[in-house]
Amino acid sequence: MADGDDVLAANRRFYEAFEASDIDAMSDVWVHDDAVVCTHPGWATLHGWAAISASWFALFHNDQALQFIVTNEQARVEGDVAWVSCDENILGDGPGGTAAALNLFVRTNETWRMVGHHASPVVPRG
Amino acid sequence: MADGDDVLAANRRFYEAFEASDIDAMSDVWVHDDAVVCTHPGWATLHGWAAISASWFALFHNDQALQFIVTNEQARVEGDVAWVSCDENILGDGPGGTAAALNLFVRTNETWRMVGHHASPVVPRG
Repeated sequence: MADGDDVLAANRRFYEAFEASDIDAMSDVWVHDDAVVCTHPGWATLHGWAAISASWFALFHNDQALQFIVTNEQARVEGDVAWVSCDENILGDGPGGTAAALNLFVRTNETWRMVGHHASPVVPRG
Repeated sequence: MADGDDVLAANRRFYEAFEASDIDAMSDVWVHDDAVVCTHPGWATLHGWAAISASWFALFHNDQALQFIVTNEQARVEGDVAWVSCDENILGDGPGGTAAALNLFVRTNETWRMVGHHASPVVPRG
Protein backbone atom coordinates (compact mmCIF):
# COMPACT_ATOMS: atom_id res chain seq x y z
CA MET A 1 0.00 0.00 0.00
CA ALA A 2 2.89 2.34 0.82
CA ASP A 3 4.35 1.28 -2.52
CA GLY A 4 1.18 2.40 -4.26
CA ASP A 5 1.34 5.75 -2.46
CA ASP A 6 4.91 6.29 -3.64
CA VAL A 7 3.90 5.53 -7.21
CA LEU A 8 0.96 7.92 -7.03
CA ALA A 9 3.34 10.58 -5.70
CA ALA A 10 5.62 10.01 -8.70
CA ASN A 11 2.58 10.27 -10.97
CA ARG A 12 1.67 13.59 -9.35
CA ARG A 13 5.21 14.89 -9.87
CA PHE A 14 4.80 14.13 -13.56
CA TYR A 15 1.62 16.22 -13.84
CA GLU A 16 3.07 19.02 -11.70
CA ALA A 17 6.08 19.25 -14.03
CA PHE A 18 3.74 19.18 -17.03
CA GLU A 19 1.50 21.97 -15.64
CA ALA A 20 4.49 24.09 -14.65
CA SER A 21 6.15 23.58 -18.07
CA ASP A 22 9.24 22.77 -15.99
CA ILE A 23 11.72 20.88 -18.16
CA ASP A 24 14.10 20.23 -15.24
CA ALA A 25 11.35 18.74 -13.10
CA MET A 26 10.11 16.70 -16.09
CA SER A 27 13.65 15.48 -16.70
CA ASP A 28 13.88 14.39 -13.08
CA VAL A 29 10.66 12.36 -13.42
CA TRP A 30 11.98 10.16 -16.23
CA VAL A 31 14.54 7.41 -16.67
CA HIS A 32 17.07 8.63 -19.23
CA ASP A 33 17.73 5.72 -21.55
CA ASP A 34 16.97 4.57 -25.07
CA ALA A 35 14.12 2.25 -24.10
CA VAL A 36 11.68 4.74 -22.56
CA VAL A 37 8.53 5.37 -24.59
CA CYS A 38 6.12 8.29 -24.81
CA THR A 39 2.93 8.68 -26.84
CA HIS A 40 1.34 12.12 -26.74
CA PRO A 41 -2.32 12.33 -27.83
CA GLY A 42 -2.49 11.83 -31.60
CA TRP A 43 1.28 11.39 -31.92
CA ALA A 44 3.31 8.41 -33.02
CA THR A 45 5.25 6.79 -30.18
CA LEU A 46 8.57 8.42 -29.34
CA HIS A 47 11.40 6.12 -28.30
CA GLY A 48 14.30 7.09 -26.06
CA TRP A 49 14.93 10.00 -23.74
CA ALA A 50 16.54 12.20 -26.44
CA ALA A 51 13.38 12.27 -28.57
CA ILE A 52 11.08 12.42 -25.55
CA SER A 53 12.89 15.31 -23.88
CA ALA A 54 12.82 17.21 -27.18
CA SER A 55 9.05 16.73 -27.31
CA TRP A 56 8.60 18.15 -23.80
CA PHE A 57 10.86 21.04 -24.68
CA ALA A 58 8.70 21.78 -27.75
CA LEU A 59 5.43 21.40 -25.83
CA PHE A 60 6.66 23.66 -23.04
CA HIS A 61 7.68 26.37 -25.50
CA ASN A 62 4.30 26.39 -27.05
CA ASP A 63 2.35 29.22 -25.41
CA GLN A 64 -0.64 27.17 -24.43
CA ALA A 65 -1.13 26.98 -20.67
CA LEU A 66 -2.44 23.62 -19.55
CA GLN A 67 -4.00 22.63 -16.29
CA PHE A 68 -4.90 19.08 -15.39
CA ILE A 69 -7.42 17.71 -13.03
CA VAL A 70 -6.28 14.12 -12.74
CA THR A 71 -9.00 11.69 -11.74
CA ASN A 72 -9.54 7.97 -11.47
CA GLU A 73 -5.90 7.24 -10.60
CA GLN A 74 -5.33 3.54 -10.13
CA ALA A 75 -1.86 2.28 -9.30
CA ARG A 76 -0.62 -1.28 -9.53
CA VAL A 77 2.78 -2.38 -8.27
CA GLU A 78 4.50 -5.62 -9.35
CA GLY A 79 8.00 -5.86 -7.89
CA ASP A 80 10.00 -2.89 -9.09
CA VAL A 81 7.57 -1.97 -11.85
CA ALA A 82 4.35 -0.02 -11.41
CA TRP A 83 1.77 1.59 -13.59
CA VAL A 84 -0.93 4.16 -13.07
CA SER A 85 -3.99 4.56 -15.23
CA CYS A 86 -5.74 7.89 -14.89
CA ASP A 87 -7.89 10.43 -16.68
CA GLU A 88 -6.36 13.78 -17.59
CA ASN A 89 -9.14 16.34 -17.51
CA ILE A 90 -7.57 19.20 -19.36
CA LEU A 91 -8.46 22.83 -18.74
CA GLY A 92 -6.69 25.35 -20.89
CA ASP A 93 -6.86 27.95 -23.59
CA GLY A 94 -8.17 25.34 -26.02
CA PRO A 95 -11.40 23.40 -25.85
CA GLY A 96 -10.16 21.15 -23.05
CA GLY A 97 -11.38 17.59 -22.92
CA THR A 98 -10.28 14.33 -21.40
CA ALA A 99 -7.34 12.12 -22.20
CA ALA A 100 -6.89 8.57 -20.95
CA ALA A 101 -3.36 7.93 -19.71
CA LEU A 102 -1.25 4.93 -18.81
CA ASN A 103 1.97 5.81 -17.00
CA LEU A 104 4.72 3.29 -16.35
CA PHE A 105 7.36 3.51 -13.65
CA VAL A 106 10.43 1.50 -12.60
CA ARG A 107 11.93 1.67 -9.11
CA THR A 108 15.69 2.19 -8.86
CA ASN A 109 17.41 3.06 -5.59
CA GLU A 110 14.01 3.39 -3.93
CA THR A 111 12.90 6.05 -6.39
CA TRP A 112 10.10 5.51 -8.91
CA ARG A 113 10.93 6.97 -12.30
CA MET A 114 8.86 7.05 -15.46
CA VAL A 115 9.70 4.70 -18.30
CA GLY A 116 6.48 5.08 -20.29
CA HIS A 117 3.67 7.57 -20.84
CA HIS A 118 0.78 6.99 -23.21
CA ALA A 119 -2.06 9.49 -23.41
CA SER A 120 -4.94 9.46 -25.86
CA PRO A 121 -7.99 11.63 -26.43
CA VAL A 122 -11.32 10.27 -25.20
CA VAL A 123 -13.94 10.91 -27.86
CA PRO A 124 -17.27 11.93 -26.30
CA ARG A 125 -20.00 9.40 -27.09
CA GLY A 126 -23.51 10.56 -27.85
CA MET B 1 16.79 -11.96 -24.76
CA ALA B 2 14.79 -15.22 -24.49
CA ASP B 3 12.48 -13.33 -22.10
CA GLY B 4 11.94 -10.66 -24.72
CA ASP B 5 11.12 -13.32 -27.30
CA ASP B 6 8.49 -14.83 -25.01
CA VAL B 7 6.91 -11.43 -24.48
CA LEU B 8 6.86 -10.73 -28.22
CA ALA B 9 5.19 -14.13 -28.71
CA ALA B 10 2.51 -13.14 -26.17
CA ASN B 11 2.07 -9.84 -28.00
CA ARG B 12 1.59 -11.73 -31.27
CA ARG B 13 -1.03 -13.99 -29.67
CA PHE B 14 -2.94 -10.86 -28.70
CA TYR B 15 -3.05 -9.58 -32.29
CA GLU B 16 -3.86 -13.04 -33.67
CA ALA B 17 -6.85 -13.30 -31.32
CA PHE B 18 -7.89 -9.76 -32.31
CA GLU B 19 -7.66 -10.49 -36.06
CA ALA B 20 -9.48 -13.81 -35.69
CA SER B 21 -12.23 -12.19 -33.54
CA ASP B 22 -11.61 -15.17 -31.26
CA ILE B 23 -13.00 -14.38 -27.81
CA ASP B 24 -11.62 -17.60 -26.29
CA ALA B 25 -8.11 -16.88 -27.54
CA MET B 26 -8.42 -13.25 -26.39
CA SER B 27 -9.59 -14.45 -22.98
CA ASP B 28 -6.56 -16.72 -22.74
CA VAL B 29 -4.22 -13.76 -23.46
CA TRP B 30 -5.41 -11.72 -20.46
CA VAL B 31 -5.13 -11.87 -16.69
CA HIS B 32 -8.68 -12.04 -15.33
CA ASP B 33 -8.81 -9.66 -12.39
CA ASP B 34 -10.23 -6.30 -11.43
CA ALA B 35 -6.98 -4.37 -11.93
CA VAL B 36 -6.40 -4.98 -15.65
CA VAL B 37 -6.84 -1.91 -17.87
CA CYS B 38 -7.72 -1.47 -21.54
CA THR B 39 -8.02 1.70 -23.61
CA HIS B 40 -9.33 1.23 -27.14
CA PRO B 41 -8.67 4.11 -29.59
CA GLY B 42 -10.89 7.05 -28.61
CA TRP B 43 -12.42 5.20 -25.66
CA ALA B 44 -12.25 5.92 -21.97
CA THR B 45 -10.15 3.40 -20.04
CA LEU B 46 -11.93 0.21 -19.08
CA HIS B 47 -11.03 -1.31 -15.71
CA GLY B 48 -11.28 -4.99 -14.85
CA TRP B 49 -11.70 -8.12 -16.91
CA ALA B 50 -15.53 -8.06 -16.83
CA ALA B 51 -15.71 -4.70 -18.63
CA ILE B 52 -12.78 -5.52 -20.91
CA SER B 53 -14.10 -8.92 -21.99
CA ALA B 54 -17.47 -7.30 -22.75
CA SER B 55 -15.70 -4.75 -24.96
CA TRP B 56 -13.95 -7.50 -26.95
CA PHE B 57 -17.22 -9.37 -27.28
CA ALA B 58 -18.87 -6.22 -28.68
CA LEU B 59 -15.96 -5.46 -31.02
CA PHE B 60 -15.90 -9.05 -32.30
CA HIS B 61 -19.63 -8.99 -33.04
CA ASN B 62 -19.29 -5.88 -35.08
CA ASP B 63 -19.03 -7.00 -38.73
CA GLN B 64 -15.88 -5.08 -39.54
CA ALA B 65 -13.00 -7.35 -40.45
CA LEU B 66 -9.66 -6.04 -39.19
CA GLN B 67 -6.19 -7.03 -40.20
CA PHE B 68 -3.08 -5.74 -38.48
CA ILE B 69 0.41 -5.35 -39.70
CA VAL B 70 2.25 -4.85 -36.45
CA THR B 71 5.53 -2.98 -36.81
CA ASN B 72 8.15 -1.38 -34.62
CA GLU B 73 7.68 -3.88 -31.77
CA GLN B 74 9.97 -3.11 -28.87
CA ALA B 75 9.85 -5.26 -25.76
CA ARG B 76 11.30 -4.45 -22.37
CA VAL B 77 11.38 -6.93 -19.49
CA GLU B 78 11.85 -5.93 -15.83
CA GLY B 79 11.53 -8.95 -13.56
CA ASP B 80 8.09 -10.47 -14.03
CA VAL B 81 6.66 -7.42 -15.82
CA ALA B 82 7.16 -6.59 -19.47
CA TRP B 83 5.78 -4.14 -21.97
CA VAL B 84 5.74 -3.90 -25.72
CA SER B 85 5.29 -0.72 -27.69
CA CYS B 86 4.29 -1.21 -31.30
CA ASP B 87 2.43 0.31 -34.21
CA GLU B 88 -0.83 -1.26 -35.34
CA ASN B 89 -1.12 -0.65 -39.06
CA ILE B 90 -4.76 -1.40 -39.66
CA LEU B 91 -6.10 -2.73 -42.94
CA GLY B 92 -9.84 -3.28 -43.10
CA ASP B 93 -13.15 -2.29 -44.55
CA GLY B 94 -12.72 1.21 -43.16
CA PRO B 95 -10.11 3.79 -44.02
CA GLY B 96 -7.35 1.97 -42.13
CA GLY B 97 -4.66 4.01 -40.44
CA THR B 98 -2.12 3.53 -37.69
CA ALA B 99 -2.58 3.20 -33.95
CA ALA B 100 0.20 3.46 -31.40
CA ALA B 101 -0.04 0.74 -28.75
CA LEU B 102 1.48 0.02 -25.38
CA ASN B 103 0.85 -3.51 -24.14
CA LEU B 104 1.65 -4.63 -20.60
CA PHE B 105 2.27 -8.19 -19.47
CA VAL B 106 2.89 -9.96 -16.16
CA ARG B 107 4.57 -13.38 -15.92
CA THR B 108 2.85 -15.97 -13.74
CA ASN B 109 3.84 -19.65 -13.78
CA GLU B 110 6.23 -18.91 -16.67
CA THR B 111 3.40 -17.55 -18.83
CA TRP B 112 3.17 -13.92 -19.90
CA ARG B 113 -0.38 -12.61 -19.72
CA MET B 114 -1.72 -9.18 -20.60
CA VAL B 115 -2.62 -6.76 -17.81
CA GLY B 116 -2.86 -3.59 -19.90
CA HIS B 117 -3.55 -2.52 -23.47
CA HIS B 118 -3.60 1.11 -24.59
CA ALA B 119 -4.06 1.95 -28.27
CA SER B 120 -4.51 5.40 -29.75
CA PRO B 121 -4.91 6.76 -33.26
CA VAL B 122 -1.89 8.41 -34.82
CA VAL B 123 -2.98 11.59 -36.56
CA PRO B 124 -1.12 12.07 -39.86
CA ARG B 125 0.99 15.26 -39.83
CA GLY B 126 1.20 17.37 -42.91
